[in-house]
Amino acid sequence: MKKINRVAIVGGTHGNEFTGAYLIKKFEKLPNLIQQPSFETLTLLGNPQAFAAGRRYIDKDLNRCFLHTNLQDITLSSYEDIQAKAIYEMLVQKGQSQVDVIIDLHSTTANMGLSLMLGSHHPLLLQLAAYLSSINPWVKICWTQPEKGSNFLRSLCELGFVIEVGPVAQGVLNAEWFQKTEELIYAILEFLERSNQGLILDFNSTLTLYQYLETIDYPRDEQGEIQAMIHPQLQFRDYQPLNPGDPMFLTLDGQAIAYQGKSTVYPIFINEAAYYEKGVAMYLTQKQMMDLAGNL
Amino acid sequence: MKKINRVAIVGGTHGNEFTGAYLIKKFEKLPNLIQQPSFETLTLLGNPQAFAAGRRYIDKDLNRCFLHTNLQDITLSSYEDIQAKAIYEMLVQKGQSQVDVIIDLHSTTANMGLSLMLGSHHPLLLQLAAYLSSINPWVKICWTQPEKGSNFLRSLCELGFVIEVGPVAQGVLNAEWFQKTEELIYAILEFLERSNQGLILDFNSTLTLYQYLETIDYPRDEQGEIQAMIHPQLQFRDYQPLNPGDPMFLTLDGQAIAYQGKSTVYPIFINEAAYYEKGVAMYLTQKQMMDLAGNL
Repeated sequence: MKKINRVAIVGGTHGNEFTGAYLIKKFEKLPNLIQQPSFETLTLLGNPQAFAAGRRYIDKDLNRCFLHTNLQDITLSSYEDIQAKAIYEMLVQKGQSQVDVIIDLHSTTANMGLSLMLGSHHPLLLQLAAYLSSINPWVKICWTQPEKGSNFLRSLCELGFVIEVGPVAQGVLNAEWFQKTEELIYAILEFLERSNQGLILDFNSTLTLYQYLETIDYPRDEQGEIQAMIHPQLQFRDYQPLNPGDPMFLTLDGQAIAYQGKSTVYPIFINEAAYYEKGVAMYLTQKQMMDLAGNL
Repeated sequence: MKKINRVAIVGGTHGNEFTGAYLIKKFEKLPNLIQQPSFETLTLLGNPQAFAAGRRYIDKDLNRCFLHTNLQDITLSSYEDIQAKAIYEMLVQKGQSQVDVIIDLHSTTANMGLSLMLGSHHPLLLQLAAYLSSINPWVKICWTQPEKGSNFLRSLCELGFVIEVGPVAQGVLNAEWFQKTEELIYAILEFLERSNQGLILDFNSTLTLYQYLETIDYPRDEQGEIQAMIHPQLQFRDYQPLNPGDPMFLTLDGQAIAYQGKSTVYPIFINEAAYYEKGVAMYLTQKQMMDLAGNL
């Protein structure tokens, strides 16, 4: 298995997602907590100005600034564009990633528990996902198609992934999720250490994955104004089956709107605050079982 | 009892508190829902630019801009200062309030249910509070000392009050709280109609009130950085008794900090997102029982 030499833990990529930002503050003061014998662990507060302002971003979403062409474009000079370039300079040199793993810590107002959002199907990530799933019932694993030309921070190295924690309101430090996330980080670092030592940790050979299918926006009028809310029966039911005909939205004047799809799906990021401006009420995923014995 | 001629319902005074803002949108489209035979009901979206931006405010907190001297100060020209002056012009003429009641709709990340925040001890408000408490278990009543020189929007008329709804994350439209708040507004308007007609609605003669005592900030270091979080045992326990010695905060490195007061208090606004920048981790209140029979 790939040898891990350096791991970067990033928090506060969005300034009002306090769980990750304050974990970085803690690890900066107590670096021994995240050191392992066989690799180095770095920490990075992703968006310090947005964190200081208690906002997601100052000018634009930092976690959409990492497209390679944008990083090379000197005309892009917003605060987040400059910050993205600085992070790139720190983590990548001469096109080569200087870290083997990026753990980018986020929070969400959706009921996502501890979700690992994978952008790569690397066997080590799948094994890590299976291990974490087997030891922690809060862990869920999502993936998209392998990233090419991603604009996410995690794309700066092959083994980059996001941890989404929630439900947590923006701008709130929730002790319970802070502690759950902290424990998850220690489990990840321990897994990587064991992997470096060639020790295999026990895990279920069957991994449950939620694969991205499509984006659903809120019903809107011609001016783009939202006309319906997440239906109360769907609110906080991330990762639960949504069947054709199940209520999905409730209009402001009280009419239910049903899910019109042809098959059962598993919504995630239901009612995520930061996605209203992106035209996203939820993502639909497909639930998959993967037999790792045949994939590793 | 005082005759009510005009009622103003205000939402979106804070742009990312969507419950009230979208109720205003609904009432603008369906004004019959809030009309009563004996009085007129107006609606007002408090901070349209902040609502469009999905932020609490653009330049400063609008709900701290209504101090009389500030409204008269032409050198104050931030977006919210100008908006406050426009609202004042709309609701007050020649120093006389043009509305008899202001209902200012807010939401909070704290577990406040449906909280009426009273700034006046007017008998009609106490009677309304008692009526709502008796018909709806989510209703809680808070008050401060009678306001003199308040900077709140509600202070623009004698019978102004705030409704705080939560827990709801900032920037999120939650259908359940939207519906609960809507029902509460109808109950308030019905009460005012009956009062105008001289009809007394049944209510408990004993009213439970939570009176403001003091503000508690997060433990911070010399640079002002937060060193501790709301303790998990206190999170979401607004209106529950906090006894001397009970855990109040948890430091980032895991040490509990106990409440040091001498008597039992009832915290509210626990971990409200918008109050981090104001140096408020919670407010402490005293629970009081008031016999309305002797006060009306």
